[in-house]
Amino acid sequence: MNNNEVKDNKVINKIQNLAEMLEPKIISYRRDFHKYAEIGWLEFRTASLVAARLRDLGYHVEVGKAAVNADERAGLPSKDAFQSALERAAEQGADLEFLQVVKDGFTGVVGTITTGKGPTVALRFDMDALPIQESHAETHRPYREGFASVNLNNDHACGHDSHTATGLGIAEILRSLRVNFSGTVKLIFQPAEEGVRGARSMVASGVVDNVDYLLGHHVYTSWAVGEIISGLGNYSATQKFDAVIHGAAAHAGGNPQGGKNALLAASTAVLNLYAIPRHNAGATRINVGQLFAGSGRNVICAEARMVIETRGANNELSDYMYQKALQVLDGAARMYDCTLEIIPMGSAPSASSDQILAQRVEDVGSQIGNLTFLPPAHSGGSEDFTYMMKRVQEKGGQAANIGIGARFQSVNSKVSNGHEKILMSHTPEFDFDERAIKIAMTLLSATVMDIFNSSKTAG
Amino acid sequence: MNNNEVKDNKVINKIQNLAEMLEPKIISYRRDFHKYAEIGWLEFRTASLVAARLRDLGYHVEVGKAAVNADERAGLPSKDAFQSALERAAEQGADLEFLQVVKDGFTGVVGTITTGKGPTVALRFDMDALPIQESHAETHRPYREGFASVNLNNDHACGHDSHTATGLGIAEILRSLRVNFSGTVKLIFQPAEEGVRGARSMVASGVVDNVDYLLGHHVYTSWAVGEIISGLGNYSATQKFDAVIHGAAAHAGGNPQGGKNALLAASTAVLNLYAIPRHNAGATRINVGQLFAGSGRNVICAEARMVIETRGANNELSDYMYQKALQVLDGAARMYDCTLEIIPMGSAPSASSDQILAQRVEDVGSQIGNLTFLPPAHSGGSEDFTYMMKRVQEKGGQAANIGIGARFQSVNSKVSNGHEKILMSHTPEFDFDERAIKIAMTLLSATVMDIFNSSKTAG
Amino acid sequence: MNNNEVKDNKVINKIQNLAEMLEPKIISYRRDFHKYAEIGWLEFRTASLVAARLRDLGYHVEVGKAAVNADERAGLPSKDAFQSALERAAEQGADLEFLQVVKDGFTGVVGTITTGKGPTVALRFDMDALPIQESHAETHRPYREGFASVNLNNDHACGHDSHTATGLGIAEILRSLRVNFSGTVKLIFQPAEEGVRGARSMVASGVVDNVDYLLGHHVYTSWAVGEIISGLGNYSATQKFDAVIHGAAAHAGGNPQGGKNALLAASTAVLNLYAIPRHNAGATRINVGQLFAGSGRNVICAEARMVIETRGANNELSDYMYQKALQVLDGAARMYDCTLEIIPMGSAPSASSDQILAQRVEDVGSQIGNLTFLPPAHSGGSEDFTYMMKRVQEKGGQAANIGIGARFQSVNSKVSNGHEKILMSHTPEFDFDERAIKIAMTLLSATVMDIFNSSKTAG
Amino acid sequence: MNNNEVKDNKVINKIQNLAEMLEPKIISYRRDFHKYAEIGWLEFRTASLVAARLRDLGYHVEVGKAAVNADERAGLPSKDAFQSALERAAEQGADLEFLQVVKDGFTGVVGTITTGKGPTVALRFDMDALPIQESHAETHRPYREGFASVNLNNDHACGHDSHTATGLGIAEILRSLRVNFSGTVKLIFQPAEEGVRGARSMVASGVVDNVDYLLGHHVYTSWAVGEIISGLGNYSATQKFDAVIHGAAAHAGGNPQGGKNALLAASTAVLNLYAIPRHNAGATRINVGQLFAGSGRNVICAEARMVIETRGANNELSDYMYQKALQVLDGAARMYDCTLEIIPMGSAPSASSDQILAQRVEDVGSQIGNLTFLPPAHSGGSEDFTYMMKRVQEKGGQAANIGIGARFQSVNSKVSNGHEKILMSHTPEFDFDERAIKIAMTLLSATVMDIFNSSKTAG
Repeated sequence: MNNNEVKDNKVINKIQNLAEMLEPKIISYRRDFHKYAEIGWLEFRTASLVAARLRDLGYHVEVGKAAVNADERAGLPSKDAFQSALERAAEQGADLEFLQVVKDGFTGVVGTITTGKGPTVALRFDMDALPIQESHAETHRPYREGFASVNLNNDHACGHDSHTATGLGIAEILRSLRVNFSGTVKLIFQPAEEGVRGARSMVASGVVDNVDYLLGHHVYTSWAVGEIISGLGNYSATQKFDAVIHGAAAHAGGNPQGGKNALLAASTAVLNLYAIPRHNAGATRINVGQLFAGSGRNVICAEARMVIETRGANNELSDYMYQKALQVLDGAARMYDCTLEIIPMGSAPSASSDQILAQRVEDVGSQIGNLTFLPPAHSGGSEDFTYMMKRVQEKGGQAANIGIGARFQSVNSKVSNGHEKILMSHTPEFDFDERAIKIAMTLLSATVMDIFNSSKTAG
Repeated sequence: MNNNEVKDNKVINKIQNLAEMLEPKIISYRRDFHKYAEIGWLEFRTASLVAARLRDLGYHVEVGKAAVNADERAGLPSKDAFQSALERAAEQGADLEFLQVVKDGFTGVVGTITTGKGPTVALRFDMDALPIQESHAETHRPYREGFASVNLNNDHACGHDSHTATGLGIAEILRSLRVNFSGTVKLIFQPAEEGVRGARSMVASGVVDNVDYLLGHHVYTSWAVGEIISGLGNYSATQKFDAVIHGAAAHAGGNPQGGKNALLAASTAVLNLYAIPRHNAGATRINVGQLFAGSGRNVICAEARMVIETRGANNELSDYMYQKALQVLDGAARMYDCTLEIIPMGSAPSASSDQILAQRVEDVGSQIGNLTFLPPAHSGGSEDFTYMMKRVQEKGGQAANIGIGARFQSVNSKVSNGHEKILMSHTPEFDFDERAIKIAMTLLSATVMDIFNSSKTAG
Repeated sequence: MNNNEVKDNKVINKIQNLAEMLEPKIISYRRDFHKYAEIGWLEFRTASLVAARLRDLGYHVEVGKAAVNADERAGLPSKDAFQSALERAAEQGADLEFLQVVKDGFTGVVGTITTGKGPTVALRFDMDALPIQESHAETHRPYREGFASVNLNNDHACGHDSHTATGLGIAEILRSLRVNFSGTVKLIFQPAEEGVRGARSMVASGVVDNVDYLLGHHVYTSWAVGEIISGLGNYSATQKFDAVIHGAAAHAGGNPQGGKNALLAASTAVLNLYAIPRHNAGATRINVGQLFAGSGRNVICAEARMVIETRGANNELSDYMYQKALQVLDGAARMYDCTLEIIPMGSAPSASSDQILAQRVEDVGSQIGNLTFLPPAHSGGSEDFTYMMKRVQEKGGQAANIGIGARFQSVNSKVSNGHEKILMSHTPEFDFDERAIKIAMTLLSATVMDIFNSSKTAG
Repeated sequence: MNNNEVKDNKVINKIQNLAEMLEPKIISYRRDFHKYAEIGWLEFRTASLVAARLRDLGYHVEVGKAAVNADERAGLPSKDAFQSALERAAEQGADLEFLQVVKDGFTGVVGTITTGKGPTVALRFDMDALPIQESHAETHRPYREGFASVNLNNDHACGHDSHTATGLGIAEILRSLRVNFSGTVKLIFQPAEEGVRGARSMVASGVVDNVDYLLGHHVYTSWAVGEIISGLGNYSATQKFDAVIHGAAAHAGGNPQGGKNALLAASTAVLNLYAIPRHNAGATRINVGQLFAGSGRNVICAEARMVIETRGANNELSDYMYQKALQVLDGAARMYDCTLEIIPMGSAPSASSDQILAQRVEDVGSQIGNLTFLPPAHSGGSEDFTYMMKRVQEKGGQAANIGIGARFQSVNSKVSNGHEKILMSHTPEFDFDERAIKIAMTLLSATVMDIFNSSKTAG
C-alpha cells in the first residue's frame, strides 16, 4: 500500500461519510424531481432548481444559450407545448428570471468549480422525463408514497430524476472536498437525452471542449444494487427522424384517380425500408416504429407520418442505412406524385468507454467495498452521451460511462419462481432502488478525487 | 283538367299554406337540433323530442327495440361514450323515461297514423350528426346567430338536422290532412346514417315490411334552392370495416427478430388491397382511408389499425372486393405471424329509385311551381337508405330518394369570379339555405297525398 | 323491290357462285399459309405469295417501305431472327427478289384495282401467326390432316391464315366483277397484328388516307358458323411496353450492400402498378404479364424485365394508366439507385365501328341468306385495326369490323353435356370451321359491291 | 531436431521429388478435365477417368450408390439433361460399363488404400464445373492453348479441374509411399459442390463415418502462388431452394378478376423476404437471385419461380431465415389464393477447421519451404465440404480445409497501376496458375504422411 492509496482511502472515507449524511436530502430531491417530471427541452423547473442549488453551493453556473447551441438542437416541442410548460413550471416553483433565460428550449445547466490548475473532470447528468402516464396502482411505490408525477403524461420512467439528484449530491461532496484537490470540476446537467436530442447541442456550445476526463452514469434495474458495470460501451450510432409524405386528398369513391395517395407511398416505403440490404461490415438496424396516416375512411390519404430510426455498429453503418432510407422514401413519394419531408429528431454517434478510465473506476470501486463489477456488456442501445464522449476522446481526453445496479425489491417484486420482478424502464410501472443514489454519489466522487490525486502525484 | 287534378290542386294549395305557416317553427326546430347535435346511436335528446312531438300530434309511436333490431346494428360507440351522451342528453332536456327505453343504442323512432285502409306510405328522416368540431368563425352563420353546436365534436355538417325538422313538419301537415285521405302514413326517424350503420337494423326490426311507397330526401348544397333531383339512384354497395393486425412488440435495436411486426404486415396489406384486380362486370373501389400503427420509434410495431371501405356498382361487386380484401389481410397477417381482427363498421347495398315513383314526384312538383327538376344524376356515394329501398322493392313496393337543392348564399358566399361558394358537407363550415325545408315539406306531403288520392280514384 | 335490289340480288348471286367455285382453292391457300406459319414482321413467304397472287390477278401492288412506315413499327424482332426467317422463307418458296424489298421488316402488301372514279373501299387482312408451338395431338385436325405448322413455335392460332386466304378470294371475286362497278378497291395485307404492332406503320405510310369505306373481319370460334356480328366495337385503347430495370450485381453473401437490386425495384413496381387507382370515367386495366429477373441464386439481381400492358375504355383512360405506370416504374427504380428503360412494344387506340356501315353489312347479309346477325358485343380486347378505323373516320369515311362465326365441330368437339367444345384462339389446339371462309368472302365482296352500286345510284 | 523430423524431412524430400516428376502429367490431366468440363451430377466422363485411374493405381474403388446416398441428393438435373450428358460422356471417352453404374446421378468416387491398422485419413476433391460459357478470347489461356471447354455452357470456372487432377497426383504419391506408413488413405471425389448439393449425399452414404482426419483444399486466385491459408473457417450455413407459386391464368383485359396472380404473390414475397428482420445473434442473409414469371403480356401470371438462398453465421441463424422465409412465402401465396411449392436445392451447415489440424498443416508446410502462411480469413461464402467436416468432428475426428494461392500472371494480368489482375472465379475468364497443383500435391501428401508417422511414434 503506497501513499496514494492511504490518501485515497482517507478521501474515500470522507466521501462515504458525506454521502451517508446527504442521502436523505438527495432522495428527497429525487422524489421532488419525480413528482414534477418534465420531458425533454421543457425541464424548466428542474433546471431552475439545479441552477439555484449549484449557485448556492458556490459553483459558477452557465445556463441558456451559454450551455446549449441553438442550431444543433433536435426534436423541439411545439410553441404551445413551450408555453404551457413554462406556465406550469412557474406555478410549480421555478424561478421566473431563470425561465426568461431558458424559455425557448435552452434548459442545459453547467456548474464549474476550479482551483485554477490541474485536470478538468466533467460529469454529466441527464434531466428529462418521458411522455408516459405514470401508474396510479397501489403497488407502484411513487404513487403509494405520494411522489408520483402530477404532470399528466410526464413520467421519470428512466431514472433521470435519480441522475439529476445524484449530480446535486456530487456537487455538494466535491464542494466540501475542494481544499483536497487541484483541478476543475464541471457538472453538466443535460436536457433531452430521450430521443438522443440534447447532448449534441451542449457539445456544440463547447462545454466539453477543455475536458480531460468525462464520466457519465445510468441506473439500471436489470442489475442488483451494488452491481456495477464500469465502461459501458459499443453504443450503436443512430439517426432518428420523422418522414412525412404529403399527397392530396380526394373522394375515394367518386374520384379515386384524383388524389395522391400518401398511404400507398408510405406503405411502399415501409416494406422497402426494412428491405434495405444488410451490410458485410457489421450490424445495421432500421425501424419504422409508428405510422399515422389519413383523415377518413372514404378519403384518399393525403398525409402519412412515419417515425423512423436507423442504427449501425459504427457511424458509417448508421449513415449507410440513413442514406439508403432517404433514397427509398424519395422514390416511394415520387411514385405517387407526393412530396417528402424529413424532420431530424436526434442522432448519436457510436462510441465506447476508454478502458483505462473504466479500469480506474473499478479500482476506486474496489476500495469502496461492497461493489461487484460485472464484465462489460454490449449496451445494445443508443445514448447521446456518446456525443460528449467522442468530443473528449477526439481532443485526447478519456471518457467512460458507468452502469449502476438499481433493481427494486418492491412489495410486488417477488414472483412465484422466486426471482425478483424487474420493473422495466420506459414503462408506467418503472421504479428503482434509491440506495443506488448513494452508491453513484460515492463512486463518482471518489473517482474524481482519484483523478485529481493521481494527477497531483504524477505532477 | 280532370277531377283528380282539381282535387290535387286544392290539396296542394292547402299543403302550401300549412308549410308557409309552419316554416318558422320548423326552422326553429332545426336550429335546436343543430345546437344540440348528437352523433350516431347517441341521438338521445333528438329522438326524445321527436317521439314526444309525434305523440303530441296523435301518432302511434314505436321506439327502442321495437324500431331497432339489436343484432343488426353496426359501429356502436363505447360504453363510456353511451354513458356520457346519456348524461348530456338528460342535462339538455331529454325525457328521462324515454332515455331508459333507448339508452343502449336504440334511438330509432317510428310514428304511424292510419285511416285503416288504403296504401301505406313511409317517409324516412335521418337524425345523426358528424364527429366534426363546428366552425366558430364569424362568417359561419350558425355560430354568428347563436345556434352552433354546443356539443364538442358533434356537428350537423350533413343537414340531418334539417331532415329531422322537416319530418316533424310533414307529421303536422299530414295530421291536419287526415280527413282527406285513406291510408297509412309511417314516419321513420333513423339513427346512425353516417357510416351507413343504422338503416339495416330498422329494416331488420320490420318497420318497412308492409310499406307500399317509400320516400326519402336529402338536402344538397351543390344545387340551388328550388332545384330538385327526383329519383337519386345508382347508389354503390359498400362495406365499411376496420382491420386490426395484432403482432408483438420488441426492442427494435436489441431484439429485432423478437417482435411480430404488425406494421410490415399492414403495409403489405395496403399495397395488395389496392392491387385487388378490377372486375369486368363493373366499377369497384377500395380505400384504406387511415392507418394507425405503433407505439414508439424504437419498438417493433405491435398493432396496426386500418380503416377500410370497399364499394361496388352492385352488391356482388362490393362483396367480391370485400372477400378479396379479407384474403389479402389474412395472408399479410400470417406472413408476420400476426393475427387479424375484422370489425364491421357498416354496410349498404346498391339500389336505385323506382322511375315510376320518381316521375310521380316530378309530376306533383310541377303542380307546386317554382321548382326545376334536374336530370337524374349518379350519386357517386353510398347511403344506407338503400337497405330500406331494397326491402320495399323486394316486397313489390316502390321507393324513391329525392335531392333538394339548398345552396346557401352566405355573406361570404360570393367569390371573385361571381360564382357562389358551396359550403361543402362534412366540413366545419357546412351550412345550407333553410328555404329548402319548406320546399321539402311541401313536395313530400303533396306526393303522399297524391298517392292516397290516386289510390282512392283507382279503387 | 326497287331496281337496286334487283341488281343487288343479281350481283349477290354472282358473288355466291364465284365464292362457291373458289372455296376449295382458298381453303388450300389457307392450309398452305397455316403450314408455313410466320410470326409478326417475319411474314416473308406469306407476303411474297400474296403479292405474287395479287399481281397475277392484275392488281397494282405496293410492298415494303411503300406500304409500311419504318419509324412507326414497334416490337421488331432481333437481327438474328430476321436472318433465319429470311433463310427459311427462301427455302419454303418465297420469291427472292421480293425478299430483298421486304427483308428488314416491311412485310405489308397493298393491292389496288380501280375504275378511276367512284368511292374507294378498302379491306384489311392480317397475316401473322403467333409464337406458339402447335399441337401434335391426333385430335388436332391440322396435324392429323398434315397441314400443321412445320415452323417451330410459329402457329396460326388466331385464324389470320384464314383472313389472308379470304383476302385472296375476295381479290379474285372483285377482279371478276370489275366491269360491274365504278370505284377503287384496296386490299391491305397487314403484318404484325398480334401485339398490335403493325397497323400503325401502315397508317403512317398513308395507305388508308384516301379511303371512303374500310372493312375488316375476324373469325371467332365463340360463335357458330353462319352467326355474324356486324360492327364490332368498343375496342379498348392499349399501350404495350417492356420496362427494364438496370441495377448492379454483387455477391449476395459477401457484399449484400454492394449491388443495386433490380428485382426489389421490379417487385415494388409490380405491386404499385396493380395499385394504380381506378378511374371514375370508365374501365381501366393494367397487367404485368411476365417478369424475368436475375442471373444466379447468390447474385444480387442486376436486371429485371417486365412485360406490361395498360388498357382503357378510351384513349385518355389508357394514357392515364400509362402515365401513372411510368411514374411508378421511375420511383421504384430510383428507390434502388437503378435506371429505367422503357421499350414501346405496340399500341392501339380505342375505336368503334360506324353504325351506318355496320347496318349496311347486315342489310347485305340478309339478302345472302342463312346468316344470323347477333347483337353487337363489346369485344373486350384490343385490335390494331382501330388505327386504320380511326384514320378513315377522322377523314370523314366509314369503317366497320365484322365478326364471322367459325366454331369448329371437331371429332372431339362434343363434350358430355352436349355442348360443342370451343377451340380457343391463342392455344395450341386452336382450330376453326373453314366454312367461315366462304361466308366471309361472300359477305365482304357483296358489301363492297353494294357500296359501289349505291354510290352509282346516288350519283 | 528429433528423429521424427529427420524422418519427416526424408519423407518430405521424397514427396517433393515425386510431385516434381508427376507435375507435367497432372497438369495434362487438369487440362483434359477442363476441356471436357461437366456440371454437377453429370460428371460422367470425369468420374469414369478418376475411377479407372484409381483402380490402375491399386486403390479399392467404390462408385455409384455405394458412394452417394440416393435420397440426400439435391438439385438434380432433368431426365433429358442426364440423357444427353451420358451420350456426350460416351462420345468423349467415358467407360460404358461405368456409365451404367452411375448413370442416374451417382457420380461420386471413393478410392481406398490401407495397411490394415493406424488412423484413417481422408482427402476430398470436388469434380464439377459451372454452367458458364467459357471465354473464347485470345487473352484467355485455356482457349489460346487449346484446352478451353468443348462442352457448351460447361466451364471449370472454379478450379475443380485442378482439385480432381491434384487428387489423382496425391493418389499416385501416397501409393508410392505405402511401405512408409501404417494407416488408411481415403480419396473422396465428390460431385456437385456448386450449389452445395453433393457432399450431403456422400456423408449420408457413410464415406466419412470412420475417418480420423479429413482434409480439403481449394485454389484461390486472390492469393499469390505460394501463399497458403491453413484452416479456412467460419463457413456460413446456407439453405438454397426454389419457391414456385402456382396461380391461375386469365385474360388480363377481359377477365381481370378471373385469375390468381402468381406474380403479385411473388412480388409481395420478394419485398417481404428482404424485409425479414435482422437477428441480434449474428449475420444473416437472404437473396432472391432470380424470378421467372408469366407466359404472356396479356395473361394474368399463373406461375412464378423464385431462386432463393438464406445464410446465417451459424446453423440456427440460417434456419431462422429459412423458417421466416417459408412463412412469408406461404402468406404471400395465400393472399392470392395461390399454392406454394418449395423445392430444396442444396444446403450446407456452418463449420470451421480444427485449429490443431490446421496448425499441423502449417508446421508441415514450414518444412517444405517457400510457402507463406496467411492469417486465417473468414471465407464469406459457403462450401458443402462443411457437411463432411461436421460429421468427422462429431465422431471425434479432426477436419481442416486449406486454401492454396493460385493467382495467375497472364499476359493480360498487368494493369496500369502495376497490380496483377485477378481472374475471378465464376466468370468466363477465370484461370489460375498451375504451379498451385504441385504445391497442393506436396503439402497435402506430406500432411498425410506426418499424421501417419506421428501416429506410429505415438503408438
